[in-house]
Amino acid sequence: MIIDALQIPTPERRWLEAWRAGGVSSVHITLAIWEDARQTVSYIGKWRRVLQENNDIVELACTADDIERIAGSGRTAVIFGFQNTAPIEHDIELIGAFHALGVRIMQLTYNLQNYIGSGYWEERDSGISSRFGRTAIAEMNRVGILIDLSHCGDRTTLEAIELSERPVSITHANPREYVGKPAFGAGRLKASEAVRLLASRGGVIGLSPNRHMTKRGVETTLEEFCDMVAWTVDLIGIDAVAFGTDYCPGHPPTIRNWWRYARWSRETAPAEHMKAAPHEGWQDWFSSPADFQNILRGFEAHGFARDEIEKITGSNWLRLFRESFGPPKADG
Amino acid sequence: MIIDALQIPTPERRWLEAWRAGGVSSVHITLAIWEDARQTVSYIGKWRRVLQENNDIVELACTADDIERIAGSGRTAVIFGFQNTAPIEHDIELIGAFHALGVRIMQLTYNLQNYIGSGYWEERDSGISSRFGRTAIAEMNRVGILIDLSHCGDRTTLEAIELSERPVSITHANPREYVGKPAFGAGRLKASEAVRLLASRGGVIGLSPNRHMTKRGVETTLEEFCDMVAWTVDLIGIDAVAFGTDYCPGHPPTIRNWWRYARWSRETAPAEHMKAAPHEGWQDWFSSPADFQNILRGFEAHGFARDEIEKITGSNWLRLFRESFGPPKADG
Repeated sequence: MIIDALQIPTPERRWLEAWRAGGVSSVHITLAIWEDARQTVSYIGKWRRVLQENNDIVELACTADDIERIAGSGRTAVIFGFQNTAPIEHDIELIGAFHALGVRIMQLTYNLQNYIGSGYWEERDSGISSRFGRTAIAEMNRVGILIDLSHCGDRTTLEAIELSERPVSITHANPREYVGKPAFGAGRLKASEAVRLLASRGGVIGLSPNRHMTKRGVETTLEEFCDMVAWTVDLIGIDAVAFGTDYCPGHPPTIRNWWRYARWSRETAPAEHMKAAPHEGWQDWFSSPADFQNILRGFEAHGFARDEIEKITGSNWLRLFRESFGPPKADG
Repeated sequence: MIIDALQIPTPERRWLEAWRAGGVSSVHITLAIWEDARQTVSYIGKWRRVLQENNDIVELACTADDIERIAGSGRTAVIFGFQNTAPIEHDIELIGAFHALGVRIMQLTYNLQNYIGSGYWEERDSGISSRFGRTAIAEMNRVGILIDLSHCGDRTTLEAIELSERPVSITHANPREYVGKPAFGAGRLKASEAVRLLASRGGVIGLSPNRHMTKRGVETTLEEFCDMVAWTVDLIGIDAVAFGTDYCPGHPPTIRNWWRYARWSRETAPAEHMKAAPHEGWQDWFSSPADFQNILRGFEAHGFARDEIEKITGSNWLRLFRESFGPPKADG
C-alpha cells in the first residue's frame, strides 16, 4: 500500500490518473490554506463532484476501512484536509461541520500566527497560547480530526503534541538535524525533540523529496532520500516514519503569492521564486506521483526489509488514520 | 464639549435622544466585536441609515472638524469604531476599506488572542508577535485609524504603544494601581507603566464609571469617580485623561454570552451575571448618558478648574482625533 500524506492537486483528472500510474493507494489532499469557511465549503462541494465524476479511479475516504476497500478495488482513496485552520475561523462548531463534510486532517497553522498557534515564519512563536487553541485541539480530538503540525513553529509543534490527547501527525516535513539549512530555511524542518515526542505518543511524520526541504535540493538522489528515511527510522523507530511528498500539481507559478502572502500582506514572492510552477523542478526519480514505484525500488536497493517498506509506504499512516478518523475508543 | 469615547448602543432613536438630554457633543460607538467583514459591512449600512433617519439630532463624523460642526449645530457627532479586529479578518486591504466606510477607531483585540495580538483574558499574552500585527498597525497609522488598546493584555498594550508611529488610545479602561481588583478582575485594568507610556507618546485614556471596573462597583460615588480622574491626572498629566463610559444600552442580558464567548466556545456566562442588562446597574449619578451634566457638576465640586474640565470632558479626545483620523501630516 502506498499512502502519500500530502499533495495539493488542482481538481483535474490528469492528476488522479498520475496516482493510478504510480499505484498510489491513497492521497491526503489539501483543500484550504487561507480560505475562510464560506470559500472552503464551496471548494469541498467542487472536489466531491470531481471525485464522483471520476469514480472509476478515485473515491473519497472517510475511514481507514474506506481506504482499504477503495485501494482494494484498484482505485485511489482521497482524504480531505486543510493546511491551516482559517476555514474554521473562530467558530468551534465548524470543526464538527467540516468533519461531516469529509475533512479528516487539519494543520493547526500554515506559516503564520492564527487563532490557534504560530507558524514557522513568525519571529516569535507563542505556542498554543490561546483559549481557542486549547479548545479547538480538544474538539478535534473529540470528533476525530487528525492534527497536522507540518508548518507550525517549534514551540507550537511541541505544545500541540503535548496538549493533544490523541496521536498527531507531521504530514510533510523533514528532520532538521539531518537536512541542515535548505532553501526554505531550517524553520520549516522539524527539530529532533519534536519528532521524538511525536513518535513517543503514537504519531507519524511524512518525509518529502521536496527540493526546498532536502539537503541538496533538486540534486538529491534517490539513495540520499532513502538515507534520510533510514536516519529518521533510526531516530524514532520504524512505526513513525512515512511519506508526505508535498507535490502540488496544476498551479501556476504565481500561486506562490497566494500561499505566502494571501491577503495579509502586499508583498509578492521574488521573481526568481516564480520561475517554475510548484510541480516543476522535482528530482528525475520523482517527477510526479506516477514515479512512486521508483521510490519502492530505491528502498529495496537501500536494504530495507519488505515489512519495513510496507510500514513506511503505507501501513504506518493507515494505522494512525484508523486511530484518528472517528471518535476516541471508549476505555482504550 | 462632552465626548464619550465608548458606548455600544443598539441602533434606536431613544439612545440618541439620551445623548441630547445629556448635552453630549460626540460619542464613539462600537459596531463590531466578533463580527466578520461581511456582517460588519452590513451593520455599518444599517447604522448609516439610522443616522440619516435621525439627522435632526445626530450625524456621522469622519474628522475632528465634523465633530465641531455637528456639535456646534446642537446635535451629537457619532464616531464609528470596532472593539476587535475580527472585521478585518486576515486582510490588510480591509483596513482602508473600513476607513472609507467611516470607521475611525479599532481596538486591536477584544478579550482573546487574534491575528494581531492578545486580549486580557488569555493566560499568556504573546504581545504583537505576528507579522500581520505589525503590518496592520502600520496600515492603521497610514490610513488614519486610531488604535484602541482597552481590552488588550498587558504585553500587547505595551508593544502596540511602542510599535505605533502615531499616538494611540485606551478608550475605556481604568488604572489598575488606583482601582485594585474589581469584579472583572484586574486584567481588564491598565498598568501604570502602560498608561504612562501611552501619555508620553501623545495618547489619551478614557476613564469609566462602569461598576465592573471601579473600586466599589455600583456603590462608587461621584466624588470617588472624580478622585480616580484626579489620581490619573496626577499620574500622566491633564492632557491625557478623558472619558469612555462603556455604556451599552438596548441589549438583553444574554448579550453577555455573545460578547464573552461568541462562537469560539460553548461556555455561557453564569446566570448571576445575566440578571441585569448591560445598561442596568449603573450608579444613580450616571444611570444613562442623559446624566452627563451630573459629572460636570461633580468635577466642579471636586475643584477642577474650568479649562481642566474642558480637557477631560472633550478637548483631549478632540485633539487626539484631529491628529488621528486622516493620513499623517507630512514632515510633522
